[in-house]
Amino acid sequence: MALIAPVCPAAPTRGGCRHRSCANRARVPPSVERAGRCLGWVAAGDGARKRGASVATSNIEIAQRAELWPITRIAEGLGIPEEALEPYGRHKAKVALSHLAALRDRPRGRLVLMTAISPTPAGEGKTTTTVGLGDALNRIGERAMICLREPALGPVFGMKGGAAGGGYAQVVPMEDINLHFTGDFAAIAVATNLLAALIDNHIHHGNALDIDVRRVTWRRVLDVNDRALRDTVIGLGGPGNGYPRESGFDIVVASEVMAIFCLASSLEDLKNRLGEIVVAYTRDRAPVRARDLHAHGAMAAILRDALAPNLVQTLEHTPAFVHGGPFANIAHGCNSFIATDSALRLADYVVTEAGFGADLGAEKFVDILCRSTGLRPDAAVIVATVRAVKYHGGVEVADLASEDVAAVTRGIVNLERHLTTVRETWGIPAVVAINHRAEDTDAEIAALVGAVEAAGARAVVAKHFADGGAGAEDLAREVVRLCAEPVERGLRFTYPDEAGLWQKMSAIATRVYGASGITASTAVRAQIRRLQEDGYGGYPVCVAKTQYSFSTDAKLRGAPTGHSVDIREVRLAAGARFIVMVCGDIMTMPGLPAIPAANTIDVTEDGRIVGLF
Amino acid sequence: MALIAPVCPAAPTRGGCRHRSCANRARVPPSVERAGRCLGWVAAGDGARKRGASVATSNIEIAQRAELWPITRIAEGLGIPEEALEPYGRHKAKVALSHLAALRDRPRGRLVLMTAISPTPAGEGKTTTTVGLGDALNRIGERAMICLREPALGPVFGMKGGAAGGGYAQVVPMEDINLHFTGDFAAIAVATNLLAALIDNHIHHGNALDIDVRRVTWRRVLDVNDRALRDTVIGLGGPGNGYPRESGFDIVVASEVMAIFCLASSLEDLKNRLGEIVVAYTRDRAPVRARDLHAHGAMAAILRDALAPNLVQTLEHTPAFVHGGPFANIAHGCNSFIATDSALRLADYVVTEAGFGADLGAEKFVDILCRSTGLRPDAAVIVATVRAVKYHGGVEVADLASEDVAAVTRGIVNLERHLTTVRETWGIPAVVAINHRAEDTDAEIAALVGAVEAAGARAVVAKHFADGGAGAEDLAREVVRLCAEPVERGLRFTYPDEAGLWQKMSAIATRVYGASGITASTAVRAQIRRLQEDGYGGYPVCVAKTQYSFSTDAKLRGAPTGHSVDIREVRLAAGARFIVMVCGDIMTMPGLPAIPAANTIDVTEDGRIVGLF
Repeated sequence: MALIAPVCPAAPTRGGCRHRSCANRARVPPSVERAGRCLGWVAAGDGARKRGASVATSNIEIAQRAELWPITRIAEGLGIPEEALEPYGRHKAKVALSHLAALRDRPRGRLVLMTAISPTPAGEGKTTTTVGLGDALNRIGERAMICLREPALGPVFGMKGGAAGGGYAQVVPMEDINLHFTGDFAAIAVATNLLAALIDNHIHHGNALDIDVRRVTWRRVLDVNDRALRDTVIGLGGPGNGYPRESGFDIVVASEVMAIFCLASSLEDLKNRLGEIVVAYTRDRAPVRARDLHAHGAMAAILRDALAPNLVQTLEHTPAFVHGGPFANIAHGCNSFIATDSALRLADYVVTEAGFGADLGAEKFVDILCRSTGLRPDAAVIVATVRAVKYHGGVEVADLASEDVAAVTRGIVNLERHLTTVRETWGIPAVVAINHRAEDTDAEIAALVGAVEAAGARAVVAKHFADGGAGAEDLAREVVRLCAEPVERGLRFTYPDEAGLWQKMSAIATRVYGASGITASTAVRAQIRRLQEDGYGGYPVCVAKTQYSFSTDAKLRGAPTGHSVDIREVRLAAGARFIVMVCGDIMTMPGLPAIPAANTIDVTEDGRIVGLF
Repeated sequence: MALIAPVCPAAPTRGGCRHRSCANRARVPPSVERAGRCLGWVAAGDGARKRGASVATSNIEIAQRAELWPITRIAEGLGIPEEALEPYGRHKAKVALSHLAALRDRPRGRLVLMTAISPTPAGEGKTTTTVGLGDALNRIGERAMICLREPALGPVFGMKGGAAGGGYAQVVPMEDINLHFTGDFAAIAVATNLLAALIDNHIHHGNALDIDVRRVTWRRVLDVNDRALRDTVIGLGGPGNGYPRESGFDIVVASEVMAIFCLASSLEDLKNRLGEIVVAYTRDRAPVRARDLHAHGAMAAILRDALAPNLVQTLEHTPAFVHGGPFANIAHGCNSFIATDSALRLADYVVTEAGFGADLGAEKFVDILCRSTGLRPDAAVIVATVRAVKYHGGVEVADLASEDVAAVTRGIVNLERHLTTVRETWGIPAVVAINHRAEDTDAEIAALVGAVEAAGARAVVAKHFADGGAGAEDLAREVVRLCAEPVERGLRFTYPDEAGLWQKMSAIATRVYGASGITASTAVRAQIRRLQEDGYGGYPVCVAKTQYSFSTDAKLRGAPTGHSVDIREVRLAAGARFIVMVCGDIMTMPGLPAIPAANTIDVTEDGRIVGLF
C-alpha cells in the first residue's frame, strides 16, 4: 500500500501529521494546537483501487468525484413526497416538520448507538463507522438510515478539517456540509446573540428587571475559532454603548440554544425551552429568564426553518439526517432528537453517533437524551482502533505505528470498561467495531478480537474507510443479530430521576468512570445545594471533562481506579434541562493553530473548493 | 379610508408611530431609538378592497396571503433553465454564476435607478417604488426585473421592521427575505470574522508580520443590533487568549467584505479584492493585507455560494434579484453588481435602488459603482413624498399630517437640487415619483407637481403601496418615455478619476451638497496626503454623512448653501477600492430600542411567523 502523492508538507515543521495514512503521521505532538498538517492525501488502498482510482486521493477528492443522486430520489426511497421537501440545491433538503409529525404513530425502527473507546487525539472514527455501517446495512438488504451531527464551521479552518466522515465512508456534498450547509448554525448563532443583545439592551434602557451586570451568565457565540474573544470587556465607549461588563464568546456548538435545539421535540417545545433559559441573576440572586425579556418568541421564529432536519446521502446513497451538533462536553453531544426520532419512523435501522468515548457520549445519550425523549437503543457499536488500544496500553503516540501485541493486551482494559458499562450498567447489547487502519498487523487484530471475546462480546473488523459499505458487512450482520436478540430488561439509567444532583454525579463517577468518589469546594457544594433547593434536582447531570481518560486527568490512560472526580464548576442549563458539572479545563472557544487550515483552503476560478479535508 | 384594527398599542407610550397609515403616526420623536411601534396595520385602502380584503392588513399578512409562483416558473420566464438554479425551498433560488457568465455577450437592457429626496426618518419608499415600478412595467407590456438589497437581519428585531417593501408592493417570501434568506449575510459575517481571528491568531503565534496591536483596523461583525459590542477589549484572560487590545463589532452590512461582495464582477475578482483588504499596520506603519495572512482563499471559499444572486418574485410575480446589501454611508449602498448586470442581460428594463437620498446613494451609484463597472443608468426615478417635501419646507414632524401647501412650495428646494444634480451634473434623464400617502391632499399634490414642472421635469403620482403595479403605470410609462429619449452626452461623473482625493471630496461637497467647501484637521489632511502618496489617489471617495440634510447637520433641511463639510476621519477600503470620508457621527453598529420588535415577533405552533412587518 503506497502513498503516491507528496504528503503533508507542513508536518515536518513541527512533529507529525494526524491525517489517516499520511506517511508523516507517526508523531502527534501533545499540543492541541498543532502547526503542521497534511494536505489530506490518503493511501491508495484496496477500496480506492477497486473504484478505479490509480492515485492517492483526499477526502474532498473522493467526495467531489462521487455521483450523487438527486435528493428527491433519496427522499422517494424513504417515502417522503416531494412537497414535504424544502430543497437546498439539488443534493440537500430539509424535510418539513409537519410531514414528520404526521409519522409519529408509526412504530420506531431499530436504533443503533455508535460510541467508542476513550479516543486518542486523532479520534477513532465514529462518524466513518456510522456511515459505513449504514451503507453496509443497506447492502445486506436492510432499510437503514444514519443520523449525524452537523460539523461546526469554525474548526474547519483550524486544524480539524471536515467532519463528514472520510475515505469511502462520507456523507455528501462534503463541502456544503462542512461549510454553511443549510444555515442551521448561523440561525442558532443569531438566536443566541439576539438574546445577548436583549439582555444588555434591557440593562441600558433602565434595567427594570434589576439584572446584576456582574451576574449575566449568557455569552455570545460565533462559528469561528477565535481565542481573542474568550474573555472580553464589552459596553465600553460611554453611556451610549451601555454598561461596561466582563463577558465572552463561545463557539456556536457550545450555546445552550444548540443543546435545546437538539433536545426539542417540536417547535412549541423549542420555544418553551428557550423561554426557560436562565440568562442572568438579579441583585437579589433571583434568576432572569429569556421569557422575562420576551426573547423566546423571536428566537423560535429565527430557528423555525432550521428545526426541520437536513436530508443528505452517503457516497453509497444511504439516506442521512445531518442535523444539530451540540458540544459533547458542556452539552449532550448528539444530533437532534427530531432527526433521530423521524429517522426511526422512516427506516428499519437507524445508526446515530454520540460524542467522544462511551463514558461521555453514550452516558449522556442514555441519561439525558433517552431519559427525556423515550428513545431506546437496540444495540450499541463501540468503535476501537488497534492504535487507541495500544495507546491505552501505554504506547507513546510517536510509537503507535509499530507492532506491539503486548500493548494491545494491556490496553484492552479501557475498552472492557466501556463494554461493561454499555452492556451491564445500561443493558444495551453491544459489539466492538475494530476500525481498520493500514498499519494494523494481523497479530494485533487477533489479540484485540481475542480479548473482546474473552470479555464475553464480539469484535468485528470493519474496513469501510477503504472499502465503503462492503467493508462493514460483517459488522452490519452482527448488529442485526444483536437487535434481534430477545431483550431482557431494557435500558437502565445510571441513576434514577429522583436522586439528588450530588448523588447523580457520584453515580456517574463511580459506575461509569470507575472513580472512588467525587469532591467539590465549599462554594461548588453550596451551588449544588442551591440548585437542588431551587427545584432543579430532578434534572440529569451533564459532565464536562476530558475525553481522553475515564478520570479527569487526560494523561491517565487505560482504566484507572481509585481516582476521585473534582467538580470545579456547576452551570445551570435550564432550557436544555440539565446541570452541567465541569470537571476539568473545558474550552468553549477553540483557537486556531499557528498554520491554520484557512491558509490552504481556496476556491478555484471555476468555483471548486480545494484544500478542505 | 378607515383604520379598522386596533393599531399601534405601543405608540402612545412615547410619541408617535412611524408606520405608514397608522393612526398614531403623527408624532415621530427625534430619537433614533424610539420606544413605541405600531403592530403593522395599514389602512384598508382601495388596493386592499380590490383584492377582497375587508379588514386592515399588515405587510406580513398581505405577504402570507399571496399566491407565489414556483421559482422555477419565474426563472423560466427569464429563460433560465432549471439546471442553472440552486433552489432554496420552492420560492427562492440562486442562479448559477456559470450560467450568468455565459450571458455576458448579450446586450444590456435599460437600467433605471431608483433614488430619492433627502428622506425623513421614516424613509420615503424607494423599495416599494422599485417593486411598484417593476410590476407596472410588466403590466404595460415591458419585460422588467428589479434588483434590491437584502435586508439586514439585526434591524428586523429592533424598530426597522422588514425591508422587503410594503403594502401591495413587496418581494416575497417576505419572512424568508427578512430573516436568513439564503444565508448570504451569514457567510459574509463568517468571512469577516475568520479574517479577524486570523489577525489575532497571527499576533498570538509570534507576529512574524510585526502587526502593531494598536493599529489593527479590521473589526468583527454580527447581524444583530448590539450596542454593547461597539467598543470592547478583547484578548483578556491571560497568555493563552492572545494579546489584549481594543476592538469592536459592526453590523454585518458595514463590513468591507459586504462592499467587496457587491462590487465584485466574478469569484476571481472577489478573491483578489479580498486579498487587498488592509487589516492593520505594522509598527513601521506598513499596511498588512488579508493576502499576507493567506486569508483570502478561505474567505472566497466561504463566499462562493453566496455570490450567486438570489431570485425571488414580487407579489405580482415580477422577477427580482435580492442580493447583497452594503451600508449606504461607509459603503456604496447598492445591491450586488453581479445581480444588476445579470438582470440587464435577462430583462429589457431593470429597476435598482440606491441608498438614502440622491446626494448619497445616487452619487455613489454613479461615482463608485458605475465608474468601476461600466453600468450606465438610462433613467432615474426620484422618489418624494408630500410629507418629506413639507418636512424640508420647515414643518415639524408632529404637524406633517395636516395640509400645508405653502410648506410644499417652500420644501421643493430640496427635491429641485437632487433633480438638478441627477439631470444636469450626471446627465441622467429623471422623473419624480410622488409616493402617494393617504393623508396627502389634492392641493398639496398639485403644488408639488406644479413645482417639479416649473423646474423642467415631470412628477407622477404613484399608488403602488395601496394598489400594486396598477398604481404605478403612469410612472412606468414616463420611465419608458425617458429611456427612449435620445441621449445627448451620456453619464458624467462628479469628478474625474485623476483628481486628487481632496479635490474629489471637494467636488462632491460643492457640486452635490451645495457646500462652499471642505475642511479637515491637520491630522486628517496628513492622512489624506499619505493615502495619496501611497497610491490610493485614483480611488473614488465614499462619503459617510447624515442622509437627512445636504449638509453634515441633520437639522439643516431644505437646500442649504454656504455650509462647509468637515472631514472627521478617513478610512481606506483597499479591497472595495474606495476611500471612506467620514463627515459626522456614523453608527456602524445600531442599538435596539427600549421596546424592540423582538418582543412581539413570534412563531405559532403551526410554524407561522407573526409580529414581523
